[in-house]
Amino acid sequence: MMSLSKTAISAFALIASGIATGNIPASAHEMASTSENADVQAFPPLYAAEIARSQKFVDMMMQAGVVVPMPKDPGGGYTHEQHKRNYKAIYEAGQLYRITGEQKYADYARDVLLAYAAIYPTLGPHPARSNQLPGKLFWQNLNDSVWLVYAIQGYAEIRDGLSEKDRALIDKDVFRAAADFLSVDSAATFNRIHNHATWATAGVGITGFVLGDDELVQRALLGTTKDGPAGFLSQTDLLFSPDGYYAEGPYYQRYALLPFVVFASKINQYAPEQKIFERRDGILLKAIRTTIQLTYDGYFFPFNDAIKDKSLNTDELYQGVAIAYAETHDAGLLSIAKYQGRTILTDDGLEVARNLAADKAEPFQFTSMVLRDGPDGDLGAVAVMRRGDSTSGQAVIAKNSSQGMGHGHFDKLSWQYYDNGSEIVTDYGAARFLNIEAKQGGRYLPENESWAKQTVAHNALVVDGKSHFDGDPTRADEFSPQQFYFNAGDNLQVSSGGIDSAYPGVNMVRTIAMIDVPGLAHPVIADVLRASSDTPHQYDLPVHYDGHIMTAPQSLTRYNRERPVLGADNGYQHIWVDARGVVNADQALLTWIKGSRFYTWRWVPQAGSEFILAESGANDNDFNLRREPMLIQRLQNADNAVFAGLLETHGRYDGAAEQTVDSDSQIASLARTSFSGKDVLIITTRAGARVALAISYDNDPNKQHSINADGTTVRWSGYAARIDLGNEERP
Amino acid sequence: MMSLSKTAISAFALIASGIATGNIPASAHEMASTSENADVQAFPPLYAAEIARSQKFVDMMMQAGVVVPMPKDPGGGYTHEQHKRNYKAIYEAGQLYRITGEQKYADYARDVLLAYAAIYPTLGPHPARSNQLPGKLFWQNLNDSVWLVYAIQGYAEIRDGLSEKDRALIDKDVFRAAADFLSVDSAATFNRIHNHATWATAGVGITGFVLGDDELVQRALLGTTKDGPAGFLSQTDLLFSPDGYYAEGPYYQRYALLPFVVFASKINQYAPEQKIFERRDGILLKAIRTTIQLTYDGYFFPFNDAIKDKSLNTDELYQGVAIAYAETHDAGLLSIAKYQGRTILTDDGLEVARNLAADKAEPFQFTSMVLRDGPDGDLGAVAVMRRGDSTSGQAVIAKNSSQGMGHGHFDKLSWQYYDNGSEIVTDYGAARFLNIEAKQGGRYLPENESWAKQTVAHNALVVDGKSHFDGDPTRADEFSPQQFYFNAGDNLQVSSGGIDSAYPGVNMVRTIAMIDVPGLAHPVIADVLRASSDTPHQYDLPVHYDGHIMTAPQSLTRYNRERPVLGADNGYQHIWVDARGVVNADQALLTWIKGSRFYTWRWVPQAGSEFILAESGANDNDFNLRREPMLIQRLQNADNAVFAGLLETHGRYDGAAEQTVDSDSQIASLARTSFSGKDVLIITTRAGARVALAISYDNDPNKQHSINADGTTVRWSGYAARIDLGNEERP
Repeated sequence: MMSLSKTAISAFALIASGIATGNIPASAHEMASTSENADVQAFPPLYAAEIARSQKFVDMMMQAGVVVPMPKDPGGGYTHEQHKRNYKAIYEAGQLYRITGEQKYADYARDVLLAYAAIYPTLGPHPARSNQLPGKLFWQNLNDSVWLVYAIQGYAEIRDGLSEKDRALIDKDVFRAAADFLSVDSAATFNRIHNHATWATAGVGITGFVLGDDELVQRALLGTTKDGPAGFLSQTDLLFSPDGYYAEGPYYQRYALLPFVVFASKINQYAPEQKIFERRDGILLKAIRTTIQLTYDGYFFPFNDAIKDKSLNTDELYQGVAIAYAETHDAGLLSIAKYQGRTILTDDGLEVARNLAADKAEPFQFTSMVLRDGPDGDLGAVAVMRRGDSTSGQAVIAKNSSQGMGHGHFDKLSWQYYDNGSEIVTDYGAARFLNIEAKQGGRYLPENESWAKQTVAHNALVVDGKSHFDGDPTRADEFSPQQFYFNAGDNLQVSSGGIDSAYPGVNMVRTIAMIDVPGLAHPVIADVLRASSDTPHQYDLPVHYDGHIMTAPQSLTRYNRERPVLGADNGYQHIWVDARGVVNADQALLTWIKGSRFYTWRWVPQAGSEFILAESGANDNDFNLRREPMLIQRLQNADNAVFAGLLETHGRYDGAAEQTVDSDSQIASLARTSFSGKDVLIITTRAGARVALAISYDNDPNKQHSINADGTTVRWSGYAARIDLGNEERP
Repeated sequence: MMSLSKTAISAFALIASGIATGNIPASAHEMASTSENADVQAFPPLYAAEIARSQKFVDMMMQAGVVVPMPKDPGGGYTHEQHKRNYKAIYEAGQLYRITGEQKYADYARDVLLAYAAIYPTLGPHPARSNQLPGKLFWQNLNDSVWLVYAIQGYAEIRDGLSEKDRALIDKDVFRAAADFLSVDSAATFNRIHNHATWATAGVGITGFVLGDDELVQRALLGTTKDGPAGFLSQTDLLFSPDGYYAEGPYYQRYALLPFVVFASKINQYAPEQKIFERRDGILLKAIRTTIQLTYDGYFFPFNDAIKDKSLNTDELYQGVAIAYAETHDAGLLSIAKYQGRTILTDDGLEVARNLAADKAEPFQFTSMVLRDGPDGDLGAVAVMRRGDSTSGQAVIAKNSSQGMGHGHFDKLSWQYYDNGSEIVTDYGAARFLNIEAKQGGRYLPENESWAKQTVAHNALVVDGKSHFDGDPTRADEFSPQQFYFNAGDNLQVSSGGIDSAYPGVNMVRTIAMIDVPGLAHPVIADVLRASSDTPHQYDLPVHYDGHIMTAPQSLTRYNRERPVLGADNGYQHIWVDARGVVNADQALLTWIKGSRFYTWRWVPQAGSEFILAESGANDNDFNLRREPMLIQRLQNADNAVFAGLLETHGRYDGAAEQTVDSDSQIASLARTSFSGKDVLIITTRAGARVALAISYDNDPNKQHSINADGTTVRWSGYAARIDLGNEERP
């Protein structure tokens, strides 16, 4: 059955799919024009390129023969990758058969499926299973669901043309067997309100449509017992917030999206009476748009368990964009397809390619927005504040959302900042090397628990050296932050949220604002975090950043003989200390360079507080962690604390032109005044401009507030305001 | 004279030059078509874009008024940058006047020069001078020379049209004054055989041509006393090797190139009888080609004092390419201009743009080559071994060249490796943040001496914990390595060199080879380094690499409480130790990922040797160092040593497609057999293929050699050979 070596196969498959050589043709037209298939030339370039790419891949798979190995390896291993290649090949062969009518594609898909029929009934749980529910073909059940979602769609295209015998055999020993395995035999997973279950219900439901088996369809829509909050419809109602936000975060939102949109598209086709795309005010289409909004420069905000190299260039979004475009004809989606340079082989993909070729694309509107979390929108929110485009402009994300189940991180009220194409204030994402066998088979690493999920690994407040909810995911899922305020004005954008359950007895309220300051080229980001308690605590507030330090406070003690570890547990064991010490207000700034710009973090030191410069990577026996810098403000033995900080984007470094400007902060001072529960920050630039950010924490938009700050009476109304105090030298 | 604030000026200037906004138009055509100057449209796109870019810059400079501040700031500071902007403006205004005939450009250049005439005679040594010879306008003399090279070229275009009074004033108080200051008043620099002197001679010589002052021309060509090995002609004869290599290395070769080619082009124009471009078998044109050959993906090999973000996209190479193209009409140079997307405003630039628009470009041929060092080509060499293109292919550089004066590093026989668009085995380059004021005004940092120049910071052998020549640059300049052998065959490329003077009593011979191995996707890089001595030594051989560790030997001891520093001096004080220990042969490999590929360093442990994983960045009070990983093989108390290592490029990681293949090494073993001064490495792949690299160290190509290695008799002739030993399972 198999004549080529493993290496040869994988090399072939990769060359075929254009992966190994990176030889994806520069223009789709070029590809189309070199195709031997004359018909292909009639298709618009993007679609023709997909056909050509797919033909190369499937032809090479066909040349290699049918290879269906007994499942053995974990993620990244040979059998894992081969079964992935196979579902892709079944799917694409089916599409190519429909598009080209060439029988060889149908025959090949049939032969592969017959080979699966020969082994599938003999399979027990996967030998490389770990703590996840096992699949049969893959180490985790989830991958089997993905296999089914793709394979059944390929099968749908060839099934009518099969001999009765082959059809019956494949129906029974592959698809019905897999659908039963993934539903009734894996009911605990199948009936969850969780993305793994969405993949399973999609696979089972589409199988039901294709086999004409309504029992499978009903099981998929309503769960195995059809009586609980389970199945696809409940998932649609519960897994997305009213704003189309998925509780696990952008990385899994992307992943969860595919089965939602693919299954919904099939429901629309086979059971249009469900009006699935209208359900919950069009929640599924909203979810696709929201998924795109949760990116910067095409990359997903990496909070919670996320692999940072995931972008809109992923099959889930090729599918999502094509299906959503078919439903909505939103021209902004065409520009996403253009960015992707890819589409799918279905008729939806064809339409995307046609309208893109007809120059109908318009820019996708990335905007500031608050995305409520939770099925009812009351479990906190993710606030996104933007300036400029999503490629080179500024974006701030305030993460006031719920824990989001097992992939959630203990990072309540955390934030991130992007600028100039880069993540500047960073989120570590997951400690995982996806599909790399040497790194525990590509699974989540132990350091995902010991570092990536811990509070100190985030831009979030750590109390008494422990993580939020004491690192207990069950408790974390019971409580959510609240989004108190959001406003995206012209020269001030503000998000404010709070939580009092992350640490019993400690209330935290954090306000993040993007503020224009006269004379500065870019808006600054202000951060005011209030912690209050009746008892004294240690408060640590980290800022994880990316860049190389230009200047640091001179008063810090450096470690020149041995570099100590900051703590023993809750993530602190992974922190190397570079320097620490007390810093006076006039020295309280750290400037770094990232790419071609400079960034200065400036803060208002609280009495008795300490400043720590550090780096991740300690106690990392297997070199599983990336080494990334952080700064930590530490306040010990305090009941109440107000952390006030400011991030300034400034200057320009151009190595090629040997031009550098404004490498030093353009701000002269940052001052905080707090009075009766209100806070005022005053920013004074070196050129003398003064701007205040005033926060009343009172949502009444008409209520007037005032504070005497630093000799100036600052008056404002509402929750938060920006007040231009004019030039320093005023009468 | 100056009405705008510092900040406003610098913002204007940057917007003007397209630097601050990054808003360089996507296509030159677009720019040309939006220009208001109708004439510009007649020019080819690249040239039209240059005119438009230049007009924006000069117009904005004109709007800001004439701003010639008293010199005050060091590199990166305001007056420094303003004087840089000014020479650029004088130069470009002159060109624009010639191209457009618009009087305003001539008037502006005149006014700026009159402002210089007003202050120049009053200037003493620059107040921010340090250990470099000071300039008047800039902290170092060199920048004054650069100022003169540009300004005199702008002046040349407007001088004829000036009033006699203005011309006399500017001639005398600016150009003749500057030329005298840079030659007779700075004779010690001017008469050196050094790139600073080339800038000076170019500035003075062009001034001589423009003012019609043959005394200045002769001074520039022959030195102030016209009797020594000094001046531009001697520089041409002595600063480049017969292969066009410049002893200081690629970074300074690029920098040195500009005054050479600009002055040569002027000599060709004003004194064609010098036949300057024919001198020394066309050495200057050869030097331009060699400069381009010393790049990967457009970036210069960063050895010696080099800023790593320097690429072919630099003014020196815009000039170099245009001038060389005008002389040679080599179509490969047009593809470099295409990569640059830039050219210059002279007629040479116009011709480049015209022929590029006429589609005459051909790929520049990057090839394997040995570049001899030294005026007579006998001071060692730089060997470059390539496979594939210079953007994604493999390149190995063996640095067997001379010290190269003050900017040289103590890194004899060091090497680098590039693959897939990245530097994989790295060279730190210089510890310097060019033009960034916060980093000591952009000057070389103390860590350039304490780390970047030291041997342990390189991929070079360290004996007894000391740097080559005990870190003495004067001694280092007296001795050079020898290039023993170089051959660039189809499936084997080899460079071999040695030196016995870096450490008295220790002879080092190193052979680096790029070898094809059946079944492996990419050639492997073998490294065999022999050290021999009559007395015992500690031998440390570092490999500095870029990437994240996938797997490391399990037997290493990790540091989980405190991270120690490896040593106290000679660079060792900057090394944090991550892990160390004895490693058995079957565990002697380290795999890392960089970008989308995996790399495995495999070595043959010598008896009693230790393996150290470490990182730069210790004892770095001002955060001046980048933190980069390294591995070190350490052999103590040994007289002779043979370090044998192999770098394998393997696999593919594709995060978007979630495809990973061959993340583990595809090699099963590496064995070394040495007999009577010859070495044989045998590489056995996991698929069973066996290939030997055999080295006789005997340059007689016909002499036969044989070694019995691991049960196989390996026979070859000549210095080094690759022998295909067939499959492991042979009869």
